[in-house]
Amino acid sequence: MKVAKFGGSSVASAEQLRKVANIIMDDSDRRVIVVSAPGKRSKEDTKVTDLLIALGEAYKSGNDYELQLKLVLERFKSITDELGISDQVTTEIRQDVESVFSSNYSDALKLDAIKAIGEDSLAKVLSDYLISLGLEATYLNPKDAGIFVSDEPGSAQILEESYEHLYKLRERKEIVVIPGFFGYTKDGKLVTFSRGGSDITGSIVAAGVDADLYENFTDVDSVYCVNPNIVENPKEITSLTYKEMRELSYAGFSVFHDEALIPAFKASIPVCIKNTNNPHGLGTIIVAKKETSENPVVGIASDSGFLSLYVSKYLMNRELGFGRKLLNILEDEGISFEHTPSGIDDLSVIIRESQLTPTKEEIVIRRIKEELDPDTVNIERGLALIMIVGEGMNSTIGIAEKATRAFTHANVNLEMINQGSSEVSLMFGIKAEGVNAAVKALYQEFFE
Amino acid sequence: MKVAKFGGSSVASAEQLRKVANIIMDDSDRRVIVVSAPGKRSKEDTKVTDLLIALGEAYKSGNDYELQLKLVLERFKSITDELGISDQVTTEIRQDVESVFSSNYSDALKLDAIKAIGEDSLAKVLSDYLISLGLEATYLNPKDAGIFVSDEPGSAQILEESYEHLYKLRERKEIVVIPGFFGYTKDGKLVTFSRGGSDITGSIVAAGVDADLYENFTDVDSVYCVNPNIVENPKEITSLTYKEMRELSYAGFSVFHDEALIPAFKASIPVCIKNTNNPHGLGTIIVAKKETSENPVVGIASDSGFLSLYVSKYLMNRELGFGRKLLNILEDEGISFEHTPSGIDDLSVIIRESQLTPTKEEIVIRRIKEELDPDTVNIERGLALIMIVGEGMNSTIGIAEKATRAFTHANVNLEMINQGSSEVSLMFGIKAEGVNAAVKALYQEFFE
Repeated sequence: MKVAKFGGSSVASAEQLRKVANIIMDDSDRRVIVVSAPGKRSKEDTKVTDLLIALGEAYKSGNDYELQLKLVLERFKSITDELGISDQVTTEIRQDVESVFSSNYSDALKLDAIKAIGEDSLAKVLSDYLISLGLEATYLNPKDAGIFVSDEPGSAQILEESYEHLYKLRERKEIVVIPGFFGYTKDGKLVTFSRGGSDITGSIVAAGVDADLYENFTDVDSVYCVNPNIVENPKEITSLTYKEMRELSYAGFSVFHDEALIPAFKASIPVCIKNTNNPHGLGTIIVAKKETSENPVVGIASDSGFLSLYVSKYLMNRELGFGRKLLNILEDEGISFEHTPSGIDDLSVIIRESQLTPTKEEIVIRRIKEELDPDTVNIERGLALIMIVGEGMNSTIGIAEKATRAFTHANVNLEMINQGSSEVSLMFGIKAEGVNAAVKALYQEFFE
Repeated sequence: MKVAKFGGSSVASAEQLRKVANIIMDDSDRRVIVVSAPGKRSKEDTKVTDLLIALGEAYKSGNDYELQLKLVLERFKSITDELGISDQVTTEIRQDVESVFSSNYSDALKLDAIKAIGEDSLAKVLSDYLISLGLEATYLNPKDAGIFVSDEPGSAQILEESYEHLYKLRERKEIVVIPGFFGYTKDGKLVTFSRGGSDITGSIVAAGVDADLYENFTDVDSVYCVNPNIVENPKEITSLTYKEMRELSYAGFSVFHDEALIPAFKASIPVCIKNTNNPHGLGTIIVAKKETSENPVVGIASDSGFLSLYVSKYLMNRELGFGRKLLNILEDEGISFEHTPSGIDDLSVIIRESQLTPTKEEIVIRRIKEELDPDTVNIERGLALIMIVGEGMNSTIGIAEKATRAFTHANVNLEMINQGSSEVSLMFGIKAEGVNAAVKALYQEFFE
């Protein structure tokens, strides 16, 4: 059995929902469906979830929220009308909103309950529509599906027992449509996951029912081996491993936030990224293991906005604890670091620029001078990291040579090279202005 | 004015001392001479210092030490006889030994005083010999030279005021011969530097008199750009900077231990390494700054005996303080580390194998498992580090490419690359068995 999750753009309109229905009918293994709330139909459009948040905020600040509610209702009515199904859902939405606001829940819980209306209502609409097409389908509320979570409004964590409950869905004969994004506490309170939470629900459900495949339908054909904004129509990645996915998303690949995939990863359910607008395209499949090809490189990712904190002190490497003390100072100031390339008498710490505000920079520099008595300490901003990712790279002779050759061709100087721990990536640090040239050259070297 | 220091092999015999005298006479700027104790005349020979240590140990354990003393005396007598000068020094040695043992000094101080006899006596012999050749020369005891040190037998530290005292030596008209290896506490106790301490004395004296040049005479023509045991008659390094010297000596270059040079470095006195047996050879000069040539690489050093401690944990890089905690554990166990290459969810620590005994390894692994709850932790031994060293490398495009190409040609896989902090080196980690092939290939790439 397959679990299929449809993202916001896939359920933004009646037209899109028809595509979704066709995709479901196309494969009888697609038995469990998880849906987001309707997303944007055009650049200028507003996501239903954002309308609902506005509604919640209006209520919270004691303002009238009729306008926001009206917009939400219109949005759904236009969908049900176009699909030729009952608009009963709009009545339910109005009732939901009233009952939430009249409840004695905390503001946080009220907001969660309001935000969840988008996914919940869309799930109802989709199951109604599938039934109208003659399919056996049911809307299933997360509570009845057994999706139990921690009592943390806006960032709920799944409770382990949920997986057993979900496993029972395998017995269902009909198509089950579950709204994403939220679950219930053991005492029945609705709580949402972090934003983008429908991906989390999909991944949890796929793990719970032990699906053969978790299909994540978005609006891209597949994951590209390099940022399409840098290289024109680059090669598509047909298959990559969880580890590769993780390293790529670290350095700026944004197909979806990789943490959502953890439940599926842990249950080693293969994940397939597909395009609702081109369902017969291959898509990209993410697996636990794969054969390594003779070009082990699957992707090149890049991300800018890093800085390097450089500290040097003669005979540093005889000073037990120097590196640890430096990291201590950063930790005290709540600054997390990325990498720490080191020489004999010097140490650099690569940090995301966002982590080091001018104020913190001043504190950190002062403390380093006072506590470590270095010969020099300085900060270089405007760095970018480029990652070459692929399982088996670390055992293939010549990868580093090909990569460094590309940088030479691009006439880009290497500020940093970091290889030696990750088995699936090779990392380079350069000045941000060199990123495009370097990535293009690397693409040529490894993919052309 | 120049300070010339002659090592053990340069003063091992009368024949060698004749060479030393010629070198001194060859350049009237060589006004301050620092000497070691007589070293080995042949592979099988014993250094005078080792004879003296044996003598001291014999006394300490209450045994008869006549034999050891006899060997020392014979050694010096053979030198004075061959040089045709008085053997008065042998009488003085006997007196010194007696007075040391009859003193109320601690055993540690007694041993220091005995060890120092080798350098002290040789200095007397050399000045006698220079006088016999018609030169104006004096033996100068470190106390009279003003070399004052901390009261740490066997590892004395120089006291800052010594430099002022030494500066007065500039007024001397005659050639001054100072024994290396020891100084005196403010209350007149003789204390020695760490082993190889004559280099320390030479460097201190050079700094003290603000010499134009500190010449360190050994038995090698110069520093080679690569280990001659790996590459046959490799190119010689005519000039390198302190920083380059430091990085090279870190990775196994053993011309002399670089810490001895610190006093000269701090006073930015140029240091010249020359061969007593080939004094007209260029030698290698070590300076503070130099022009970078278009091949910025000056040397390739390699050292084995490293291990990699690998720790991986999913989402490690979101866990503030993970790296710091790992280094904390090592520090608690008194283990110093060399480098820490890192991936997204993993971290390696490169450590000298000697630092991690099986017992400590067990403790460290256990603590990491208990305190950091990693997914995996393992240790890979038998690693070697190869360093490519040269000022200006970090701003020259293409160096990394040339280097990695060499590893490919040598068919050696790169376990680790570390660039990004040191301005003068690029470091590679490989399996030890690959070192010779890799170093040969790197030599070809950069020097042929």
